Amino acid sequence: MKAIRNVASYLFGAGALGRVEEVLRTDPRVPAGPVVYLVDHFFAGHTAPLDKLPRRAMDRLVFIDTTHEPSTGQVDQVAAGLRSDLGGLPAVIVGMGGGATLDMAKAVSNLLTNGGQASDYQGWDLVKVPGVYKIGVPTLSGTGSETSRTCVLTNYETGVKLGMNSDHSVFDQLILDPELTATVPREQYFHTGLDTYFHCMETLNGRTRNGIVDAYSEKAIELCRQVFLQGDMQDQASREKLMIASLMGGAAAGNTGLVHPLSAGLSVVLGVHHGLANCLAMGPLAEYYPAEHAEFTAMARAQGIVLPTGLGAKLSEEQIAKLHASCIVHEKPLSNHLGDDFKAILTPAKMAALFRAM
Amino acid sequence: MKAIRNVASYLFGAGALGRVEEVLRTDPRVPAGPVVYLVDHFFAGHTAPLDKLPRRAMDRLVFIDTTHEPSTGQVDQVAAGLRSDLGGLPAVIVGMGGGATLDMAKAVSNLLTNGGQASDYQGWDLVKVPGVYKIGVPTLSGTGSETSRTCVLTNYETGVKLGMNSDHSVFDQLILDPELTATVPREQYFHTGLDTYFHCMETLNGRTRNGIVDAYSEKAIELCRQVFLQGDMQDQASREKLMIASLMGGAAAGNTGLVHPLSAGLSVVLGVHHGLANCLAMGPLAEYYPAEHAEFTAMARAQGIVLPTGLGAKLSEEQIAKLHASCIVHEKPLSNHLGDDFKAILTPAKMAALFRAM
Repeated sequence: MKAIRNVASYLFGAGALGRVEEVLRTDPRVPAGPVVYLVDHFFAGHTAPLDKLPRRAMDRLVFIDTTHEPSTGQVDQVAAGLRSDLGGLPAVIVGMGGGATLDMAKAVSNLLTNGGQASDYQGWDLVKVPGVYKIGVPTLSGTGSETSRTCVLTNYETGVKLGMNSDHSVFDQLILDPELTATVPREQYFHTGLDTYFHCMETLNGRTRNGIVDAYSEKAIELCRQVFLQGDMQDQASREKLMIASLMGGAAAGNTGLVHPLSAGLSVVLGVHHGLANCLAMGPLAEYYPAEHAEFTAMARAQGIVLPTGLGAKLSEEQIAKLHASCIVHEKPLSNHLGDDFKAILTPAKMAALFRAM
Repeated sequence: MKAIRNVASYLFGAGALGRVEEVLRTDPRVPAGPVVYLVDHFFAGHTAPLDKLPRRAMDRLVFIDTTHEPSTGQVDQVAAGLRSDLGGLPAVIVGMGGGATLDMAKAVSNLLTNGGQASDYQGWDLVKVPGVYKIGVPTLSGTGSETSRTCVLTNYETGVKLGMNSDHSVFDQLILDPELTATVPREQYFHTGLDTYFHCMETLNGRTRNGIVDAYSEKAIELCRQVFLQGDMQDQASREKLMIASLMGGAAAGNTGLVHPLSAGLSVVLGVHHGLANCLAMGPLAEYYPAEHAEFTAMARAQGIVLPTGLGAKLSEEQIAKLHASCIVHEKPLSNHLGDDFKAILTPAKMAALFRAM
């Protein structure tokens, strides 16, 4: 049995960003009052899209520093800043950016109405009441954050990387404009796009299966194949397809397998961004995912993407131990691929060998 | 640009029907108060599934007569009956049945809160306020009513077959139990399942296109191929797949082409049920859909389904004229396939020949 939570509505198409004002002012579902735009700090230096966001005196625009993966401390800080600046709650939060910014928007929305600290809500179904009404505007395709029921946060004090898994973490609306991904640097576009490919293929190779999740995952992978193996991944048709693949991958939101836990280790211990971390994690996993490893390699070659190598050789013993610790806690996905005795298979020595081979 | 409205949540899997009580009592989104079950009259003679529906003194169960396609008069009558019986509005409507029952549930929900008559809301975005909270429990797969933003009604006084196309016609939740379709008669199962195949292939052959709609339609068709060309269409795996195909086809809810307008004529003029009417309409359309016509024929053969023939020979000139009139009003789908000058192509003589060939 699978409970599936969907974003109630999307606006999809080139130029959709220009419709933000219409959505905010005329959609009866959108509450009236101050709008807070949480925007990836990348746009502080690339302001053209910001002109499409209607800003009144009561509204706020806050740039989200995405140098590092989103942290619980950062969520606490942004929420506290908004509370003191507005003297109350905003009516709407618009999150505009990649997965890090969208996850921040979801987490800040939850925290503002639920109180306490972001770390209180890391886990499953701990968010008590709906967050501030939230609209997602993805500017990168692949993370699936726009449709998923989680927002992944790292607690740098405890080293825990875990999402607020909750129905309340689902956006109320999405504005999906494939034009926004036209200027993303090619490496970042590839790494992030492959996030969808990885979480869908991990799902389809796992033992926890569900018909709906399978259908979404299969279609998302098919779209990824069209994007990354046929022509230029960043032309208009491909940008549309990757945005749809990302939506479907996020909506599927199945359990993952081996790539994501290894990737989480790289992010927590070494600060590697999620998209690149996935690609690095896949490097030594050909024995577990032979067909997908070959396909991933072909995708990188077809798009002229060269992945960094030599990371493993530079790792200290201490780092290897930390990587093992950060990875092995992900029992759900690891057992999804390897079974209940995953710790006997993924021994410290085996995992060290995997990280050394990156 | 495409606005897409999704059902906010599903519960999917064998045995999901047994979770109705849990959803009604524990889901904070479901309002408290009287629950009205609108149930296909088929279950008056097959009551086992009804035992899974929790019924308190304040709740009501109304059987919906689906002998004929749902009509505006029937919606008016059911809504008036509930108003007088309950002395007010129910808190929740649960629609359980095939597309006719689900469409009735959506229309009654809209009418109860909006007032007036059902025919006032046939068209696009005429429903003013949200209907009664509604949960769909499909017992047949293929119509897509469970995820679509319409509920198709025939006004037998005016001969108009047209839906309440509205965001308010979208179910709030679905309970999707593939076990419920295990006992559907094979012909009905096939005819209704093919509804998804037809509306998706019509969409993909039309000129009004959208990336998301295409992706959903393509996946729904792929699932239909697995169901109807590989093994028994009604085994457990196939029932799951067809339920998912139906969901995706309804969520795509693209514009259709030639099958649905011809089918609408057969329903309005001759009272043929929608699923069978589609199959009959496809019969003479090989020249417009050659590959799909061959595939449809192969699907019927693979499942041992024999479609009725000889209808056309029995039609009077008056019936042919009425069929033409009921079909040609569907300008949106007809122009979607044939272009703006569709009337010059689909002349009365051409259309008569198509109906005669059924």
